[in-house]
Amino acid sequence: MLSIFFKPKSIAVIGASRSPEKIGHVIFKNLLGRFRGKLYPVNPNADEILGHRCYHSVLNIRDRVDLAIVCVRPEFANRVVEECVKKKVKAVVMITSGYREIGGKGIKREEELRRILAKGKTRLIGPNCIGIYDGSSGVDTLFIPEYKMKKPEKGSIAFVSQSGAFGLALLDWMAEEGIGLSKFVSYGNAVDVDESDLLEFLARDKDTKVVAMYLEGVKDGRRFMKVLQKACRKKPVVIYKAGKEDAGKKAAVSHTGSLAGSYEVFRGVMRQAGAYEAESVVELFDFSRALGLGKKASGNRVAIVTNGGGFGVIAADLCRKENLDLPGFEEDTVREIREILPDYASVHNPLDLIGDADSERYARALKALMKDRNVDALLVITLMQTVSLSAEIIDVLSEINAESKKPMVVCASGGSYTKFLISALEKEGIPAYPTPDRAVKALKVLMM
Amino acid sequence: MLSIFFKPKSIAVIGASRSPEKIGHVIFKNLLGRFRGKLYPVNPNADEILGHRCYHSVLNIRDRVDLAIVCVRPEFANRVVEECVKKKVKAVVMITSGYREIGGKGIKREEELRRILAKGKTRLIGPNCIGIYDGSSGVDTLFIPEYKMKKPEKGSIAFVSQSGAFGLALLDWMAEEGIGLSKFVSYGNAVDVDESDLLEFLARDKDTKVVAMYLEGVKDGRRFMKVLQKACRKKPVVIYKAGKEDAGKKAAVSHTGSLAGSYEVFRGVMRQAGAYEAESVVELFDFSRALGLGKKASGNRVAIVTNGGGFGVIAADLCRKENLDLPGFEEDTVREIREILPDYASVHNPLDLIGDADSERYARALKALMKDRNVDALLVITLMQTVSLSAEIIDVLSEINAESKKPMVVCASGGSYTKFLISALEKEGIPAYPTPDRAVKALKVLMM
Repeated sequence: MLSIFFKPKSIAVIGASRSPEKIGHVIFKNLLGRFRGKLYPVNPNADEILGHRCYHSVLNIRDRVDLAIVCVRPEFANRVVEECVKKKVKAVVMITSGYREIGGKGIKREEELRRILAKGKTRLIGPNCIGIYDGSSGVDTLFIPEYKMKKPEKGSIAFVSQSGAFGLALLDWMAEEGIGLSKFVSYGNAVDVDESDLLEFLARDKDTKVVAMYLEGVKDGRRFMKVLQKACRKKPVVIYKAGKEDAGKKAAVSHTGSLAGSYEVFRGVMRQAGAYEAESVVELFDFSRALGLGKKASGNRVAIVTNGGGFGVIAADLCRKENLDLPGFEEDTVREIREILPDYASVHNPLDLIGDADSERYARALKALMKDRNVDALLVITLMQTVSLSAEIIDVLSEINAESKKPMVVCASGGSYTKFLISALEKEGIPAYPTPDRAVKALKVLMM
Repeated sequence: MLSIFFKPKSIAVIGASRSPEKIGHVIFKNLLGRFRGKLYPVNPNADEILGHRCYHSVLNIRDRVDLAIVCVRPEFANRVVEECVKKKVKAVVMITSGYREIGGKGIKREEELRRILAKGKTRLIGPNCIGIYDGSSGVDTLFIPEYKMKKPEKGSIAFVSQSGAFGLALLDWMAEEGIGLSKFVSYGNAVDVDESDLLEFLARDKDTKVVAMYLEGVKDGRRFMKVLQKACRKKPVVIYKAGKEDAGKKAAVSHTGSLAGSYEVFRGVMRQAGAYEAESVVELFDFSRALGLGKKASGNRVAIVTNGGGFGVIAADLCRKENLDLPGFEEDTVREIREILPDYASVHNPLDLIGDADSERYARALKALMKDRNVDALLVITLMQTVSLSAEIIDVLSEINAESKKPMVVCASGGSYTKFLISALEKEGIPAYPTPDRAVKALKVLMM
């Protein structure tokens, strides 16, 4: 049912404006560039906007309207939604703020909005939200100048953010890091559509492999738990929950008016349902990326392979801290690896292939470890700066990864050359991270 | 005494080579481009290298040699150092590996090297190291092709890394993040100059405001503790210690042959001396950057200011987790801030300036908070993507920061536009971080 929000055939922008600094202008202009369905600007005080005939009310549009985007002033917003209900518009994204979050008259306004919606079948996301971004259909209600923010490429992660500004910053960061997005929603006050509805919908969405959620609180705990349990049976769900501590909770109440509730209870719910808990913004996406690639380990025994001893030491520390085992290797593996290392080098885990390792040495070691029955997953550290390691390592890793069922996570720290190679690995379907900490934590998620 | 390693007037590259794939070629070539003193290639089998007259032995050079870089094969390395001692070369950086770290004959080789050094006054860094990078004098023994690795700009952080490869990756990352470097040293097996000598030297170095160290173990615990105590009285020292867990310790032994020792003991030493402990690679530099700017808070009461409610919630959570207080504001402050916010907005900490905040609103709020006696430091969150916040915010923050004694740390998450503005803040002397986690942890360091 919610699919109409993401794949409408027609959109009305109510509050479309001729003034470039107005939200209604930015939204209409962005849609003109991206959306391929029918587009209707609505504004009682304009006859034409950016060369398009402007309607004075949504009721004046003859054709069916699948989605209306409401960005008028708060005083007019409820009346406009009432017209949408009358017109039998299927879905409304309500950007307008000035509702429950401001208290007093805002609370009354929100009650009235509820009554209006109860009269029809129109579904509504918002108010007080930034709405939707769907790169494949071109639905885009984010009212941000293009130069200030990049938008992510098409991908398989759906991202639901209770907070709007947080969502924007994270979308921008995702684009920068090359993380692909299926759908984005920020739902604000959740007068109608809430986090449970969205999760239920995304769990069934075939473009989405992983659902990443930023939550401050949930409206109906019982329902959310049920939906989460079902969703986790279909695909991985990663949640970053803010409002954990008292101070954060107080801030959350005045931010979206939601009650953060006890974090311990929420954590219990996540665990029981089988969701993955992120403890930071970065983890939310690191975990989602790793899980999106779909390989899970059958145990928690990690082989660390490196061309920099120091990184091996750090990664070993981190694995122990996360309760991951570092097994000894099988005899066949040790024999095979002895052949490719200098006489003096010892073969143990973490395996130091030494600073002069080339792609060929990595290839032989990794192939042997993929066969080793003591090993469930590989943490491959590649310091791309060394003289002997060429960019060919990307092909080697990608070939070995494609041939094996065991997951492989890569860590490569450095500047622009290294970052370029990391993004190349991501495109080959290998989760790759710039620090050992992030790599080890992502690996752990594949073992849960 | 160790300054000769960093500011020599003449350098001999022993093992300089005509073959581009050889370390001795890369080093000599890099020095030709950067070092402004006298440069002597030494190689018994060449008469000319890159257009420079080549000497068959360091003994054949008539002039004084301040620094010799040794990158010959292990079989010849000790003899070459012996010649340096005879020639009264003041300092040797020994890149050559094949010593204690390989066991067996390597151990004997290292004992012999010690005996050779005992015969003279020559100081030696290495063997089995990548040596030194000093951007201002042009001393550069890192043997890395330029396209694979950027080198940091001149700055005030000295970085000592026990591990070579780790050091390279981190220098590359520092350059990418715009973190300035005074001196870099990686000292390998530490046959002569060790971590204590280097720390002692850098504590007195006037180009260095903060010393950042990556250590796996220390050679002489007692001496290190003494030196660390003295150093911490002069400037901040930030240490990231690897080899914490058993697995990491084992890896550290075979990597540089050093004993990692008990982490608890080491942590006690750090705390007693007043050093700052980093728990990850990223923290090592985040803390160093914050401390390098020199403002410390007189208490642990933080005011959080944001234009994105979600980030306020997250930052409040993180502050509580780190035991930082979020005080209420003084009446004057509340009155001042009420004037710049819409009627419905409430004034509390974290302070949400709301999504339509512009530079002017930030300016007035921040000025009031800088005067507020309940507040020791400011955590300023600026989501640069919003329509109303222009790049002018950089000038506003930089002016307020310059006028106040209270430290200010900025958090801005996003893609390339935001990253550009972050680096602009750094240039204005304001520590700025891309995630709330990193910002809060850096802020905490300024309160210790």
